[in-house]
This record gives sequence, C-alpha cells and structure tokens, in this order.
Amino acid sequence: MSSDHDRYHHRRTLTLEQRAARCPNPAGRRLLEIISRKRTNLCISLDMTDSAEILSTARLVAPYVCLFKTHVDIVADFSQDFVAELTAIAEEHDVLIFEDRKFADIGNTARLQYEAGMYRIAEWSHFTNAHVVSGPGVVDGLRGAAERLGRGLLLLAEMSSAGSLVTGPVTELAVELAAREPALITGLIAGGALLPDTADVITMSPGVSLAGEDSPTARPAAGDSFGQQYVTPRRAIMDRGTDVVIVGRAIIGAADPVAAAKLHQTAAWQAYEQSVAHLQQA
Amino acid sequence: MSSDHDRYHHRRTLTLEQRAARCPNPAGRRLLEIISRKRTNLCISLDMTDSAEILSTARLVAPYVCLFKTHVDIVADFSQDFVAELTAIAEEHDVLIFEDRKFADIGNTARLQYEAGMYRIAEWSHFTNAHVVSGPGVVDGLRGAAERLGRGLLLLAEMSSAGSLVTGPVTELAVELAAREPALITGLIAGGALLPDTADVITMSPGVSLAGEDSPTARPAAGDSFGQQYVTPRRAIMDRGTDVVIVGRAIIGAADPVAAAKLHQTAAWQAYEQSVAHLQQA
Repeated sequence: MSSDHDRYHHRRTLTLEQRAARCPNPAGRRLLEIISRKRTNLCISLDMTDSAEILSTARLVAPYVCLFKTHVDIVADFSQDFVAELTAIAEEHDVLIFEDRKFADIGNTARLQYEAGMYRIAEWSHFTNAHVVSGPGVVDGLRGAAERLGRGLLLLAEMSSAGSLVTGPVTELAVELAAREPALITGLIAGGALLPDTADVITMSPGVSLAGEDSPTARPAAGDSFGQQYVTPRRAIMDRGTDVVIVGRAIIGAADPVAAAKLHQTAAWQAYEQSVAHLQQA
Repeated sequence: MSSDHDRYHHRRTLTLEQRAARCPNPAGRRLLEIISRKRTNLCISLDMTDSAEILSTARLVAPYVCLFKTHVDIVADFSQDFVAELTAIAEEHDVLIFEDRKFADIGNTARLQYEAGMYRIAEWSHFTNAHVVSGPGVVDGLRGAAERLGRGLLLLAEMSSAGSLVTGPVTELAVELAAREPALITGLIAGGALLPDTADVITMSPGVSLAGEDSPTARPAAGDSFGQQYVTPRRAIMDRGTDVVIVGRAIIGAADPVAAAKLHQTAAWQAYEQSVAHLQQA
C-alpha cells in the first residue's frame, strides 16, 4: 500500500453513508447518498449541442451515473422544456444535475448569470461551479440563490487542460474558501483530493477516461487538439483520492455509449472499493 | 508631466488614425476608427435583464459611446431578434458590440460556447473576452470562428473586483499571448496599459465611474456589496494609460442615463486629450 493511500485515510475510513450523514451541504449530502445507493461515482459530461441527443444519451447512461454534467450554453435548441425533461430523467434514475458554468465574473454579474437569463441555472441545477480568479466576491454573488434553494457550489481548484494557471494562489484560495464554508461549498473541481483529511469536501475530477495517459493502452498523446489531458479512473480515485470522476468524450463519443458508461462505472467503483480495502488492511 | 505619462509615450504620440491604420486585428481597427471619428472612448455596460430595456438604453446612449458591452446570459427574454435589433442600433450609431462572456473553460468547450448554443456569440459580437487561467488552449478554441469572422479577442489581464487573482502569472500569460498574436487578440482587459510601448494592444478598463474612489466627491467606499471597486475615467486614462473605459451602473443606474453618458464621455475624452497634450509638451 502506498503512502498516497494513507493520505486519504480519514475520508475513506468513513463510509459514504457516514460522510452523507455529516455533510453540511444539502446537495452534497444527496450526492453521497446516491453514490452509495447506486454504487457509482461516475459523472457523465453531456457535452452535446442538440437537446434531443442530450436527453436520449442521458436516458441511456442514467442507470450507471450519479451526476449529469451539462453546458447548457452550447445547446442550440435550449428551452425550459428541455430542463424539465432532463430533470424528470434525473429524478427517475436517482441522478443529480451539475451545470458546469465556471462562473468567472465579479459577484454582481455572477449573481445575475446564476439566477436570471434564459437558463435560470439556480432553479434546476443541484450543483454549479465557479473560478475564484475574480476574488471571493463571486461566491457572495452565488450565495443568495444557492442557500435559498439548497444548491451546492464547487470551486475550481485545478484544471485538466495543458498550461492551466489554476495553481498556486488560485488553488489555495479555492481550498481555503471550501474549507471555510462547507455548508455552501460542496467541494472542489481538482485532479485529486486537496484536503485529504476533510471528509466534508467532495472532490470531482474532469479529464478522466479509460484511455487516459496512464492507461496501458493509451495512445502516445491522450488528449485533444485544444490541450485537454486525460488520466484513468484508477489514477484519479486510487492515486489521487478524488470522489467523483467526470467522463465525457470517452462515453458520449463511443460507438456504444452504454457499454462505455458501464465500463467506466465499473472501473471507477472498483478503484474506490480497492482504495477502501487497502486502508482496511493498513 | 509625470513619469506615468512618459510610459505611454509611444502609443499616444501615434494618433488614433495611425494606430487604426496599423492595427492587425480587423475589429480593433474598426474600434480605433470609431473612437477617433466619434471622439468617444466610452464603452457602456448594458447589464440589464430585460431586452426592451437594453435596447431602449442602447438607443439613448449610442451617440456617446464606441462600444456596447453585453452579458447576454442575464437577458431573460433573449432571442436572435434582440441581437438583430441591437446590431441595427449599433450600425446606425457607429458602435461595436462586445459580449463580455469571460470564457474560462478548456478550449474545446469554449469553442462550442462561442460558436454554438442559443447565443451564437461569434456571429454577432465584434469582441469577446477570455480568462487565461485554463491555459492557452482557450485561445485556440476561440480562434477558428474569430479568424473566420474577423472578430477580436480580449484577454483578462486584471480585474476590478476585490481580492482578484488575475495577477502575477495570470496577468503575465495574458500579456504574453496578446503581444504574440495581435492579429487575433485585440488587447487586454486591465486597469491600465500593461504593454505601454505597444500601440497594437488595445486596453479596456472596467470598474470606472465618475464616483470612483479617486473622485473628490466619492463616498468612503465606492463599490458594491460584492467587491466591485471603481476609479474615475481620469485615473484610468491619464494615470494608467487605458484606451477604453467601461462604465455600467454609473450610467444605466443614473436618474438620467443620457446626461450620465454625456458626462462620462466628456470626462473620458478630455482625459485622453490631456494625456496627449502632456506628451506634446514633453
């Protein structure tokens, strides 16, 4: 057993039910319950531009995931009907919704972007996320609606893209804000657990694929032409201690998305269970 | 004359027409021509949530501004008809449009957010902007549509909000990318000129108001409850060397927006002319 596993000792000696019971953020609590109940720590990125395609993919993969991640501003035919249908699929299959908006403006603008406009994100998305580069005011902008509606905020503490500057003081501020306000801030978007001793902070990791750079079958450059970089679920969960892996193109771009979703669910859940087993042997 | 003015010597010894003639970015060239022709370096932030209100304010203030800045994702009744009407007002009054989207995702997602979705920002907005925290891939994501349509990108190099981390290496990367690719990147969003010797980089500054913190009539805390901070047009232009001042609530929140727009236009243009006059006396 490696020292990496030791780092996550505290969080992973608590069961998911124990973590849910003590989670101070209502959306985070529901997510931990779903992960435990459905035995899936897989989030699917529904990064398509057509609402019918998103809904049909969501229906197909819903049994294997805990979370639907959306970018509603790439949906060409967005409507509140689309949101209602996605919500219905999510409810039927015990899935939550995470609009990956990456708010990055001053607080007053972020507030309007979250609550108003065509999307009214706060009304339907259990989670959303924000960069902290504009300063802590962005959290204050999102706070009102998030607290009123029991939503969860995730702060970007690391990114999977090449040359990311979500590092150093940016990472530190995200971690500091998350540690300070777990009732509002569900956790962090990062490559792995940055607060390994804190069971209250849920970490979600993008850039995950079974064809990640640490995969035995990976192509020489496992990424895209715009600097995205991938690791496997095993690395993200066992080596880096993340809670939820976010998988997009490896599932929605697969010839058989259901088979790809099952494979990723199994790999991610096994990595979690192996990590717990390692700890119990310690 | 202060040493601050010396720093902008090169840019301000060129006339606006000379800067326009050598500007390698088509949208930037048009903007410099408009600033010169209309004698206004004022950008209005149309941060309202109702399209009729945005359009009526745009009509009122159009004669006094060079640029309409929008946040289309706060507009509750957004439609492509709204865009068409805003474009018509802009064309009639010699104004360009800047969708202040602050892209902050990986390149592939930013590409879709810029080109696709309900908004199709690339199709109608002469300028948009991006954070560089996700790494330089965001510029590559925006590049295709921007080059095809002759759009201008602005990179966030500084922000006016309290505790901003758009500083240090983040600022340096924005400056480096802008200096490297002036044909694609029109310039920077910053408190002042960060490349004072470079006439090709257009700087736009948010957080500007005649009631800014350096105003003789400023309230003790000239800002909002979400950490926004203000300086006067004079400070932004003369002391800090910016090209375009972005004014929002000081105009759209005024009892008489037209009077407020005229006052801000006059103050900003006089600051520019005084800055040039100082240089000619040098």
